[in-house]
Amino acid sequence: MAETENEALAGAGTGEDEGHPLSEARIARIMEALDDGDRTRLWAEMEPLHAADIADLLEQISGGDRRRLIALYGQEFDGDILSELDESIREEVIGLLQPEVLAEAVRELDSDDVVDLVEDLEDRQQDAILEFLEAPDRLAVQQSLTYPDYSAGRLMQREVVMAPEHWRVGDVIDFMRGAEDLPEQFYHIILVDPRLHPVGNVMLGRIMAAKRATPLRDLVEETFHTFAVTEAEADVAYAFNQYHLISAPVVDEEGRLVGAITIDDAMIVLDEEHEEDILRLAGVGEEGGFSGRLTETIRDRALWLFVNLLTAILASVVIEQFAETINQMVALAVLMPIVASMGGNAGTQTMTVAVRALATRDLTARNAMRMVLRELTVGGANGALFGVVMAGVVGLWFGVPLLAAVIAVAMLMTLVAAALGGIVIPMALDRFGIDPALASGPFVTTITDVVGFFAFLGLASVVLL
Amino acid sequence: MAETENEALAGAGTGEDEGHPLSEARIARIMEALDDGDRTRLWAEMEPLHAADIADLLEQISGGDRRRLIALYGQEFDGDILSELDESIREEVIGLLQPEVLAEAVRELDSDDVVDLVEDLEDRQQDAILEFLEAPDRLAVQQSLTYPDYSAGRLMQREVVMAPEHWRVGDVIDFMRGAEDLPEQFYHIILVDPRLHPVGNVMLGRIMAAKRATPLRDLVEETFHTFAVTEAEADVAYAFNQYHLISAPVVDEEGRLVGAITIDDAMIVLDEEHEEDILRLAGVGEEGGFSGRLTETIRDRALWLFVNLLTAILASVVIEQFAETINQMVALAVLMPIVASMGGNAGTQTMTVAVRALATRDLTARNAMRMVLRELTVGGANGALFGVVMAGVVGLWFGVPLLAAVIAVAMLMTLVAAALGGIVIPMALDRFGIDPALASGPFVTTITDVVGFFAFLGLASVVLL
Repeated sequence: MAETENEALAGAGTGEDEGHPLSEARIARIMEALDDGDRTRLWAEMEPLHAADIADLLEQISGGDRRRLIALYGQEFDGDILSELDESIREEVIGLLQPEVLAEAVRELDSDDVVDLVEDLEDRQQDAILEFLEAPDRLAVQQSLTYPDYSAGRLMQREVVMAPEHWRVGDVIDFMRGAEDLPEQFYHIILVDPRLHPVGNVMLGRIMAAKRATPLRDLVEETFHTFAVTEAEADVAYAFNQYHLISAPVVDEEGRLVGAITIDDAMIVLDEEHEEDILRLAGVGEEGGFSGRLTETIRDRALWLFVNLLTAILASVVIEQFAETINQMVALAVLMPIVASMGGNAGTQTMTVAVRALATRDLTARNAMRMVLRELTVGGANGALFGVVMAGVVGLWFGVPLLAAVIAVAMLMTLVAAALGGIVIPMALDRFGIDPALASGPFVTTITDVVGFFAFLGLASVVLL
Repeated sequence: MAETENEALAGAGTGEDEGHPLSEARIARIMEALDDGDRTRLWAEMEPLHAADIADLLEQISGGDRRRLIALYGQEFDGDILSELDESIREEVIGLLQPEVLAEAVRELDSDDVVDLVEDLEDRQQDAILEFLEAPDRLAVQQSLTYPDYSAGRLMQREVVMAPEHWRVGDVIDFMRGAEDLPEQFYHIILVDPRLHPVGNVMLGRIMAAKRATPLRDLVEETFHTFAVTEAEADVAYAFNQYHLISAPVVDEEGRLVGAITIDDAMIVLDEEHEEDILRLAGVGEEGGFSGRLTETIRDRALWLFVNLLTAILASVVIEQFAETINQMVALAVLMPIVASMGGNAGTQTMTVAVRALATRDLTARNAMRMVLRELTVGGANGALFGVVMAGVVGLWFGVPLLAAVIAVAMLMTLVAAALGGIVIPMALDRFGIDPALASGPFVTTITDVVGFFAFLGLASVVLL
């Protein structure tokens, strides 16, 4: 990031002389201040850091350092840091805060941030935090918590700026001048009809550029979306990304305005969805990352490995059927992992492309057949290519022409099966409402392993012996 | 999406009676109009669609339908559709448009969208499109094209709203009322000093809520970032995500304001980066997805499979060293893929977590050693667990206690090696400036295969024979 020219004017800002504000040098100075128990120096070093960077710091240091840092940092700890913290250590950090620091931190937050903060906590901890809020705020948070997990209702902020649809520019400017409690961030005025149904969005920039007498309805944006409170946040994020929305109203079952979602919240959801997809494709769940508790990480990863073990044992059972064949030609044991490995990799390629295309809605019922044929063509072409390559390698290596022919045909069959399984399995899972990123892997691997070993060893047993 | 209550007021909007605006039913009606060559009906069906949805439609239908649709849709084709199109078919679509339709479409776009449109085109096509622009716009685009690929300079819009730092709220409101050419989208006024250096951002909402006499400098936002034109767009996207920026000024080498980046552009970059990471981890490059040209897709995927083939052959060479051992006990051939497969999966888990943590800057030099130890612990724990499980399975299956002991120890060794390779390799690649998402896979697989086969067969040859 470029440097802030005038740090005083830019506020506490993040003007910084060493590239990333959370530089190694700064972290070293912070740890030094911590070792010396020097609170003044600690505050001075932490002061230029954004809450997001402080959260990153807390995530990166060890549990012991975290405890010491929070104790020494004391009342400077603010609510935004809690919001930015990874969920896996949020509970721990909340437990470390002095009750009065925690109370102060929570009171600073907007209602949507408090919801985000408490929704995953245990009931006991959740109640304790809600106690800190004043009655109206507590009610607002409790109301939001009645909406389903991962819904637009949980994501929205309740603070909106609305105007009757018949207002003119001058009306809204006068209204805003007089308003006491405008939201911290807003980019549109939402026009509503007398029943509080949102009917259009007007960008602030257009209001400011217009004459006072201009009717607001002349300034509404062309693209306008509303979301139901119960709508899944993943769908909300998709729409923000697809239609380049900046903010959008949220309505209740009667279509009445109850809140608004802004792009920064949608961006966080999109980011989380992506992260989840990447990790799930690799067999890592929520607790399997770097910041979960160690025992939970082990369990999370073990779950997936266990599924994989079943798949691998199934493949071994296939191999065992051909034990006699292998006994007569040990070269088969040497070569069989090549076929299975190529199948596994080709299957993973197709599966990943298919999972992503489903997520971005580029793979639909409409083009499914064409895409399956496309993948089969890719699998067939590469199967033929690598079949020929391996035939050459095996011919030179073992000097048995029939063995070369067998591996060529097995390679082709396996890569075609990988292509078919790689696209059909995610589509089928998606159709049944199962997350394809989570569940496709084991099925695809099973197919490629079983087909790979069966084709290679089966052909060998027929042709070679 | 919830329905728009008042479609007339909401403009052309996307009010739609069937869930997603690009519903199967609508697509069917569009294809029907196309088959009938009925332009009026086609226009009527396409009219409620957002440019992003039209782009999706063009991506999903076959090449032949695409040609017919573009021909019939004719002059209604606008520039936003081109902007939204996937790069892989953009060139094709540009080639299908009538020159006058293309000229009109390009002239409608903002300078940053034209840059995005032409930057990947061949020189000949690029020149042809730039010809359509009026001289000042053409110059602006050509200037942007002098910035490095994937830089802030390419991403920014040149249109900004700035104000001298000493202005008051009244000054900026009067200025905006009089301004002719405000950008289509802006959320902040950028305060600049006399040398045009940006010194602060003021949100429009705060200006509208303030009194005319309030100095703008009293309203600046606490978090303020500027980006250099040469800064990588990935770093820009990271900062937008990390600090929840909405828009940020871009400065030239002398620190002068030259443009601004808004969150919607950053969101697109973040989305692309994620997509690239997911696909690269699975061995799929830019052309390997669903929308690339078939021959390029085959080549793209083959490249990765070729690397995997070398890895697999190396593993086979290891197995061959133990051909004699396998010959004496064929159960080894049956079981050895289990060890390698578990190692491969455990390695992929660790590698994916490490690649993501590097991308989100959660894995740093500071906590590297702790994270390596953590992964070794996870690998050791799961290695021990699955070692014991497999010892049980093998004991029951083959009834050879020593074989059970061998597979248990081999499993432990392989999963520990997988954990070590899974984190150290991405870190090393990152240190050398190589994208870990792209290159980690083959190295990790090589390690897990070689260690898996070597440990299992080597131990077996020593202990069992």
